[in-house]
Amino acid sequence: MNGAESLVRTLLASGIDTCFANPGTSEMHFVAALDKVPGMRCVLGLAETVVTGCADGYARMKGRPAATLTHCGPGFANSIANIHNARRAFSPMVNIMGDHATYHRQYDTPLTSDTEGLARAVSHWVRTTQSSSRVGADGAAAVQAALTPPGQIATLILPADTAWSDGGEVGAPLPVPARTAVAPETLRSVAQALRSGEQSLLVMSGEALSERGIRAAWRIAHVTGAQLRAPTQLPRLARGRNRPPVDRIPYVVENALKALAGTRHVILVGAKQPAAFFGYPNKPSVLTPPDATTHLLARPEQDMVGALEWLADELGAPKNPPLPEIEKPEPVRGAFEPVAFAHTLGALLPENCIVAEDAVTSGRALFAPTMGAAPHDWIQITGGAIGHGFPAATGAAIACPDRKVVCLQADGAGMYTMQSLWTQAREKLDVVNVVFANRVYKILHGELINVGAQAGPASNELFDLGRPEIDWVGLARSMGVEGTRVENLEGFADVFRAACGRKGPFLIEFRI
Amino acid sequence: MNGAESLVRTLLASGIDTCFANPGTSEMHFVAALDKVPGMRCVLGLAETVVTGCADGYARMKGRPAATLTHCGPGFANSIANIHNARRAFSPMVNIMGDHATYHRQYDTPLTSDTEGLARAVSHWVRTTQSSSRVGADGAAAVQAALTPPGQIATLILPADTAWSDGGEVGAPLPVPARTAVAPETLRSVAQALRSGEQSLLVMSGEALSERGIRAAWRIAHVTGAQLRAPTQLPRLARGRNRPPVDRIPYVVENALKALAGTRHVILVGAKQPAAFFGYPNKPSVLTPPDATTHLLARPEQDMVGALEWLADELGAPKNPPLPEIEKPEPVRGAFEPVAFAHTLGALLPENCIVAEDAVTSGRALFAPTMGAAPHDWIQITGGAIGHGFPAATGAAIACPDRKVVCLQADGAGMYTMQSLWTQAREKLDVVNVVFANRVYKILHGELINVGAQAGPASNELFDLGRPEIDWVGLARSMGVEGTRVENLEGFADVFRAACGRKGPFLIEFRI
Repeated sequence: MNGAESLVRTLLASGIDTCFANPGTSEMHFVAALDKVPGMRCVLGLAETVVTGCADGYARMKGRPAATLTHCGPGFANSIANIHNARRAFSPMVNIMGDHATYHRQYDTPLTSDTEGLARAVSHWVRTTQSSSRVGADGAAAVQAALTPPGQIATLILPADTAWSDGGEVGAPLPVPARTAVAPETLRSVAQALRSGEQSLLVMSGEALSERGIRAAWRIAHVTGAQLRAPTQLPRLARGRNRPPVDRIPYVVENALKALAGTRHVILVGAKQPAAFFGYPNKPSVLTPPDATTHLLARPEQDMVGALEWLADELGAPKNPPLPEIEKPEPVRGAFEPVAFAHTLGALLPENCIVAEDAVTSGRALFAPTMGAAPHDWIQITGGAIGHGFPAATGAAIACPDRKVVCLQADGAGMYTMQSLWTQAREKLDVVNVVFANRVYKILHGELINVGAQAGPASNELFDLGRPEIDWVGLARSMGVEGTRVENLEGFADVFRAACGRKGPFLIEFRI
Repeated sequence: MNGAESLVRTLLASGIDTCFANPGTSEMHFVAALDKVPGMRCVLGLAETVVTGCADGYARMKGRPAATLTHCGPGFANSIANIHNARRAFSPMVNIMGDHATYHRQYDTPLTSDTEGLARAVSHWVRTTQSSSRVGADGAAAVQAALTPPGQIATLILPADTAWSDGGEVGAPLPVPARTAVAPETLRSVAQALRSGEQSLLVMSGEALSERGIRAAWRIAHVTGAQLRAPTQLPRLARGRNRPPVDRIPYVVENALKALAGTRHVILVGAKQPAAFFGYPNKPSVLTPPDATTHLLARPEQDMVGALEWLADELGAPKNPPLPEIEKPEPVRGAFEPVAFAHTLGALLPENCIVAEDAVTSGRALFAPTMGAAPHDWIQITGGAIGHGFPAATGAAIACPDRKVVCLQADGAGMYTMQSLWTQAREKLDVVNVVFANRVYKILHGELINVGAQAGPASNELFDLGRPEIDWVGLARSMGVEGTRVENLEGFADVFRAACGRKGPFLIEFRI
């Protein structure tokens, strides 16, 4: 057995059965091993950032890592942006990067590059395998690293000769560390803050946003009046009718300051101190009041659900406090407008669907009006590396073939990774893609005004996407995905309903 | 004057007047400064690898750097692949990467990333500006670094507050080091080898492949019988009728070994020791005979043209030795076949055009039959980071608005950067794009057989691009570029002739 085959068998033994890939020559023996060993589903992405975006969407919905396979150096570099998003979402991921044969590296041939430097810039764990006999053990260690709470990026660099040489040994699955419990004194101290009667804010991310997490947090909120918030960029949230409503911290600094004003206790549950996405002249970076006290209840790798449940019990919260009456959203007619769109979408979201959101400015108002929608999971761009929606939706659909996936994609961001549509067509995935075609990097126009400048020739050149206009329906069709253009909300509602009623990928270009 | 404005003024003062860009919020003050200060042409790419591929094509044809503008971290990461190609081509490039305000970095907000680590992995020169008063001087140093022979990648990281704060000072252009002369004893020692009567091989890259360089080398070959070769991946070559023919070292190892067999003296002129693109089991990495002597005539940053001319004079070569009779290629009819296509293309290439090649397997036979074509410049992918053709052609067309650009693009590679077509449409660039639509990663099929394996389920999933078929004409049209599909050589000839006779971008999908 060569090293490559030992790696495929090791990954399968460790529970990884899906590989998103865009291989090159240095990965050829790994591909040959995939041909030989049954059991690994291989999904091709036509650009590497599609590959890792898929793996991120897959991991968020599955809770388990997929493998990715990319080419040495530049191939991996192309995949970094969506690894960055995955890293910010605590998504486990096992990246296999091929590389030159160990003895060949010295010749500095064209593809030779700083493979470890690139990997380190975005991975929690990096290793270059040294021999075929070590490949299996290194593979098992990579999976262990990926699964280490809260979920990590593991990148294994596989020189071609370690893949093709004999002497491979299958690596036994390694134990995965459990989430550590929150210390009793931390729990007691947070309980005391919550009992103070002063305004508290729970900022929750990661596992705290699971259904169990938000139900426990809701119990706490019920007895203490604490405000529940997710970060502006959240990895995944269980939401919709009959679930506790948790809103995001607003993106716009002024709105965030207003939303968090009056907070006396900031309780971090797997989340960071709320801070502005960017620093701006004469605006604060920290979004909570300067005189608030920050309590770190749980780090992302800790048992935050256990901590929330302990607190709820300790505070004497009822097991199932009533949920607020949230109006069922109704479709609206007329031109696109963010809130009206959100109501329309909320009325139409299919039961138990997955929403993958990378809607940028068009998505800022989506949350509140969809709280009363049918139950669904929401995943979104977490690291600010735009172009996440299409591939994350694609990976989510691979992970959950029985659920409808709704992708909400800004047009400028979507142009980064529209190759994902081809993978959706190839795999016949059940994704309804909605592209917000405002034909402008609207967020940048807003930011330009934020900095006190006016649009001029350069910003017109650099923000405008309307010369020429992109025909999203034609673009999708050229990659095998049918689509329709709509220009108002009633048109959207009709097409969206129909698209949700059929199987397979579809694209709606909403001209706004 | 704020730091951003001082940077724009510094770049202009240093002779940089073109900026390929895909900005984000952290670059907003730089964009605002571009609005304020006239003189910089701004060209938008809808993905960052398009941006740097354009800058590479521009630099290869202009001999001067463009600036690139990308967003912090993931934005820059998206641009690395084509920086890698540029680095391998000795292309000068000045990358401006925005970043968080210095005081904001501590909050580790979503886009915070290892900006310096990413930049270092692919740049010769990296600096993070520390204050607005230093921005100008740092910008001038970046340009100096980029222009330092043989051409370097300089990446300047610009924290947002150093851009927006007052106190900017324009940096004066810094002196650019000249190419160093080759030492007389090196020249004499190479002259002695060339006089030995033993078979010599000149491997030339960089400036040695300029018109002056190949004419001097041809004189040497004329009196010594030395073989002239460019690397398989060459940055730029002046070629066509009435120019000395210089062939590439073949990509396939066996062919390369055959082509270089019998060589006793390997003379490196700005090139590396010829080595296989990849290492393969039981095949050598070094392509020249083991008993050959290697002579380093000139490193890439040295005055290699001067060295070649000195040698030609020293060896008593005539000033204008006769060029070989090379038959003018003629169009061929029938189905696509690499040699027949090359003859057809050679017959039709417009006078003084620029060929940008990223044709992978479809391009292996292109060189010999096009030696008798009309004079042209050939630029190609140099670092193995596929997806170079479309953006390099785009940048070359910006650099040389009066010349026709012919882009030869493999389909799998083209899917990495087809967003370039939109920029071609927006800028009304004179590019004829030829896409070789074989609907497969054919090079990988070949490599799989090379490693002694047979296609199986995984390799079928991972190499096949035909499910669904990509409609390249529709894809181009969706981004504003007209196109036509052809299925045989006579169809290609008709459409190519017509496309070269009109202005603006065009795409020919050659189904093969």
